[in-house]
Amino acid sequence: MGEFGLIKHLTEDIKPENGSTIRGVGDDCAVLQYTGERRVLVTTDLLMEGVHFDLQYVPLEHLGYKSIMVNLSDIYAMNGTPRQVTVSLALSKRFQVEDLEALYRGMRRACEQHHVDLVGGDTTSSLTGLAISVTAIGEARPRDIVYRDGARPTDLICVSGNLGAAYMGLQLLEREKLVYYQQLKEAGDKRDQVDFQPDFSGREYLLERQLKPEARRDIVEALQKAGIHPTSMMDISDGLSSELMHICTQSHTGCRIYEERIPLDYQTAVAAEELNMNVTTCALNGGEDYELLFTVPLTLNDQVSQMEDIHVIGYITEEKLGRALITRDGQEFELKAQGWQPLSSENNAK
Amino acid sequence: MGEFGLIKHLTEDIKPENGSTIRGVGDDCAVLQYTGERRVLVTTDLLMEGVHFDLQYVPLEHLGYKSIMVNLSDIYAMNGTPRQVTVSLALSKRFQVEDLEALYRGMRRACEQHHVDLVGGDTTSSLTGLAISVTAIGEARPRDIVYRDGARPTDLICVSGNLGAAYMGLQLLEREKLVYYQQLKEAGDKRDQVDFQPDFSGREYLLERQLKPEARRDIVEALQKAGIHPTSMMDISDGLSSELMHICTQSHTGCRIYEERIPLDYQTAVAAEELNMNVTTCALNGGEDYELLFTVPLTLNDQVSQMEDIHVIGYITEEKLGRALITRDGQEFELKAQGWQPLSSENNAK
Repeated sequence: MGEFGLIKHLTEDIKPENGSTIRGVGDDCAVLQYTGERRVLVTTDLLMEGVHFDLQYVPLEHLGYKSIMVNLSDIYAMNGTPRQVTVSLALSKRFQVEDLEALYRGMRRACEQHHVDLVGGDTTSSLTGLAISVTAIGEARPRDIVYRDGARPTDLICVSGNLGAAYMGLQLLEREKLVYYQQLKEAGDKRDQVDFQPDFSGREYLLERQLKPEARRDIVEALQKAGIHPTSMMDISDGLSSELMHICTQSHTGCRIYEERIPLDYQTAVAAEELNMNVTTCALNGGEDYELLFTVPLTLNDQVSQMEDIHVIGYITEEKLGRALITRDGQEFELKAQGWQPLSSENNAK
Repeated sequence: MGEFGLIKHLTEDIKPENGSTIRGVGDDCAVLQYTGERRVLVTTDLLMEGVHFDLQYVPLEHLGYKSIMVNLSDIYAMNGTPRQVTVSLALSKRFQVEDLEALYRGMRRACEQHHVDLVGGDTTSSLTGLAISVTAIGEARPRDIVYRDGARPTDLICVSGNLGAAYMGLQLLEREKLVYYQQLKEAGDKRDQVDFQPDFSGREYLLERQLKPEARRDIVEALQKAGIHPTSMMDISDGLSSELMHICTQSHTGCRIYEERIPLDYQTAVAAEELNMNVTTCALNGGEDYELLFTVPLTLNDQVSQMEDIHVIGYITEEKLGRALITRDGQEFELKAQGWQPLSSENNAK
């Protein structure tokens, strides 16, 4: 099966759901149509094996699902509606047709759930691992779009759902992987002599948050229904601290958030205790929750506080007041983003 | 320098040129605006180190230029105008800020030449090589768009420029690389004792075609100016044979092309002779020329034949007549696409 045959095999029964999808997979470009009253939103993510996912414990179907979902999350974070995605894959020789089918099954399930059309892409080879690049295209009315730079002093800082669960799920997966390798080593590297059953009982929620994140369309829709237009919004992919810094930097503001108000799931807290980790640190820097972080005017306090699954965690301040976390015992700490360092410290030191 | 700092450093002085670019780099999504009379074109490519490029002989600035150009070529191949690109990079630790600056310099030069805005992307790490994913967005009036499925029997098959030069350039680069490794081996792997000067004199054109391909906007503009609307069109990235098969398959037609009419540069022919390769095979299957392949009604024969840098190489037939190359000595051979095989033959044999 050549490239053309493979793509055809994986995409031939994809039927466009959106009126804006004029032509999908199969030409030099996809062709889309947007009226003058709608703006086009474009976002893209590149996922690399060994950095963003470990195929030893991530099933390919989940990986496909997640790779689409993280891009849809970016469209929702602009208060838009996703309509199309393109998918590029680089594959090493170890992948078989069945693997690609599983990956596409997950991608298509994510697309179907959000009524999004897969309209094109590129499939190529890789000398090493799997690389997945997804671009999502969405639409929004100009007045609906929410940027990161609109937060103003006294605005309330809100987050949806709970934080740190996806990171804790990753820790559990990593722990079980180590246990497996230990057993494998003890068995003299004979894989057939290791009967390893990972133990995740009671932790299913954390695993699901890591392996199968959901883009929060429901929150965006609930806000629209309530007539609430956030002053700024983004999704939490790198961790609350890092994302809050982006909003403050782009809006030229400071912020105060309260440790006791950061929403945590019970399982996240228990697992943090068990793994001897600080649960607040996990919630602040963990990442991959794909919850929404947004700000609303102070006057909406009563209204947002009553909404399901939305939590007010602090407020925006003047820029000169800095960015601070107030701990449970009333101490103030400067927020720091433990962001990703793209170049080695050796190089940076030059 | 963290991710945010790096992106800011590389993109901060990018100013949008297009009215359709409402918001570029720096938020969850780029925001674009297209009127109802324009359709949106989207295309994407993923380039992997070791598969699509070899950093031993491809300067990063050229690589950046090429990675943008191959996507713009896809927009022109739909008879559209490119307007925006997004760029995702996965970097291993060996890259330094200067390397990224060189890569971006090339990308921005390609964008500037075609008045295209770089509006967003993603930068992440890689455990192994460099991965570059580019998505290009363009526009076209609905009636102007040219698909691959519109070729009809008796239509003339045309190509721009000449074919096989980029492939021959790659052969020369590979040959010089082998010579270098031979010298290095003889010097006991002491790099400082090898004074290697690659010899490309008289072959500069072939190298340029490989390292710095140009998207053929000039051809698209010349056709528009002449009032010629191709019945089908695509760009030649995988080789003439393969692309012609796509047009025939999607248009449900056959074709006849003539070996003697395939346009070749003098340097391509000389290098093929020197390397003991069949020049027609190189032109048919070489790839990476990024010339345009298109079909026009037979009635336009006189008109297209007089256009600069456009060559009529054959004609479209009924599907049942097959797809054939007529050699210089009048023999007929079935055209075969030596396409890329994404999965190993071992896997395919299952």
